[in-house]
Amino acid sequence: MMADLEELSEQESERLLASQDLGRVAMVIDGRPQIFPVNYAFADGVVVFRSGEGLVLERSPMTAVAFETDGIDEPKGLAWSVVVQGTAQNITNTIDTRSERLRHLSVSPAAPGDRNYWVGIYVSHISGRRFKLGRPAGPH
Amino acid sequence: MMADLEELSEQESERLLASQDLGRVAMVIDGRPQIFPVNYAFADGVVVFRSGEGLVLERSPMTAVAFETDGIDEPKGLAWSVVVQGTAQNITNTIDTRSERLRHLSVSPAAPGDRNYWVGIYVSHISGRRFKLGRPAGPH
Repeated sequence: MMADLEELSEQESERLLASQDLGRVAMVIDGRPQIFPVNYAFADGVVVFRSGEGLVLERSPMTAVAFETDGIDEPKGLAWSVVVQGTAQNITNTIDTRSERLRHLSVSPAAPGDRNYWVGIYVSHISGRRFKLGRPAGPH
Repeated sequence: MMADLEELSEQESERLLASQDLGRVAMVIDGRPQIFPVNYAFADGVVVFRSGEGLVLERSPMTAVAFETDGIDEPKGLAWSVVVQGTAQNITNTIDTRSERLRHLSVSPAAPGDRNYWVGIYVSHISGRRFKLGRPAGPH
């Protein structure tokens, strides 16, 4: 039987991370926390998203970021969340084969607008938790 | 006709913020960004959530945070997100009437566990955007 709150293995956290395409990036800009939603893909230990701006990456090519995604398994009445710590890098023009592979991922921003930058979050730590919903899931 | 991407008024952003109960808090701890999901309520210009830990608030009673929530209006095929900048305060034991009112809000953490702390994010800036989904909404 499942405990009330289950800490997920790295492998299971990665599986769930790869199962979604909407997450939120947190980074520190001028000492203050910023957060924004992104559509993403996950492969090869890297969370990839596209951006219309260079973000803080122009000033600081290796930027510490946190990333979160979550979801609900309705049939099982379970909710889960995965949190990643990592380093964001502008991979728009990098010529290594890993970057080239990452730029071929299907990353489909739902929001309109130009997105000339590819950003990769190189995961240094991942954790996840899953729990039974004690109440009906909200509209989210 | 709606533009592709609509910047929402402060009023509409607050209405959407009040319509959800799952969001994500970003804060800076030891210089690094952290992000975690919370169930919350919004009233009187304050996002209220409960926490099992004192977070960074024990060391720093006024902490800059960012907060995000988002949702999908399925019938209309619209997605939206709201981002808040503000200051987090531990309101567990504060005796002003506003804090007392806030501690009476219905904040129902979906995840199990003790949550002895009440935290209020006093909103200093709020923004929101809404856009038509160009593709079917994901499982989120």
